[in-house]
Amino acid sequence: MSIQPVELSKAYRLLQVGPTTMISSKYNGIEDVMAAAWVGIGGPGKVIAYIGKQAYTRQLIEKSGYFVVHIPVADQMETVLYVGEHSLATMPDKNKHIPFFYQEGFDLPMVKGCAGYLICKVIPHPENEKELDLFLGETVAAWSDTRVFRDGHWHFDEAPEGLRTVHYVAGGQFYRIGKGTKFDHGPGKD
Amino acid sequence: MSIQPVELSKAYRLLQVGPTTMISSKYNGIEDVMAAAWVGIGGPGKVIAYIGKQAYTRQLIEKSGYFVVHIPVADQMETVLYVGEHSLATMPDKNKHIPFFYQEGFDLPMVKGCAGYLICKVIPHPENEKELDLFLGETVAAWSDTRVFRDGHWHFDEAPEGLRTVHYVAGGQFYRIGKGTKFDHGPGKD
Repeated sequence: MSIQPVELSKAYRLLQVGPTTMISSKYNGIEDVMAAAWVGIGGPGKVIAYIGKQAYTRQLIEKSGYFVVHIPVADQMETVLYVGEHSLATMPDKNKHIPFFYQEGFDLPMVKGCAGYLICKVIPHPENEKELDLFLGETVAAWSDTRVFRDGHWHFDEAPEGLRTVHYVAGGQFYRIGKGTKFDHGPGKD
Repeated sequence: MSIQPVELSKAYRLLQVGPTTMISSKYNGIEDVMAAAWVGIGGPGKVIAYIGKQAYTRQLIEKSGYFVVHIPVADQMETVLYVGEHSLATMPDKNKHIPFFYQEGFDLPMVKGCAGYLICKVIPHPENEKELDLFLGETVAAWSDTRVFRDGHWHFDEAPEGLRTVHYVAGGQFYRIGKGTKFDHGPGKD
């Protein structure tokens, strides 16, 4: 696997297929990552994420001002469930076996094996954060696994099945993204 | 096809798979519907939608205080593209061939054939609406096509292919939702 930078103007397409995500952050040497299903596009170049007050990762985001949205794949589903079911607050060694790596220039932990990554800088909106648990972020860097996302487009149908994005429902049930089709017209530039 | 009410506590699952949506509204007898890819869950019982200022439907939402989030399916993809490529502002008869229907108690147009519908009442946040083009809505009623969503869960793998949700990328490219899997653990009650 190798990841390559994604053009910022097309990074929203990583999220536009509506995948379940993981969100990581780091502050004062503490790394954490959580599962986050309520994450989407908050406008051009922006991500909006619902992050409940119980999430330990939220404190790290509030203090550092940064978070990383991960686009995990089917092969990682056990990891997605694991980070969603355990909290660093009650399990200090929660992340012991999580394969974190770092990209140059960003002191933010990233979980190996995802289809895509968006580094987001919090755009402060204190009322939204406190009252609604909604965090708005500006995407400042993005990468993708070029086996599934390259040249600004997804290529699921030519890639291994295990690299499809995951779309969680509830109670352990999830769907992979499926078959692609291309019309010769439609919104959004190619 | 028949649609049945969805328990409000489970209506978020219609959106949680991350589908591309259509949004409709009505004010003073004027009906409109638009394509909307940047729509997600804004918290428990809430929807958050990015609706640009150029969208005619936005005016109807601002005036009526209500909108309907549609979960369209693959068989409707031409309709999704059509309503995304045309505006009532420049094409007065845009919706002439759109098969609208109404549910008792709500004066809001709904497009026939979708997998699900969420009626949302705007929770006013004037700054978010004006500055960020983000609209928060409380889900007050929801329905699903029981062939694909019933008992609070999706059942895509047992339903016709044309009833899978659509996940738009750009330039006419979209994916259908794919294969389902169920783990025996995971967040969210069954």
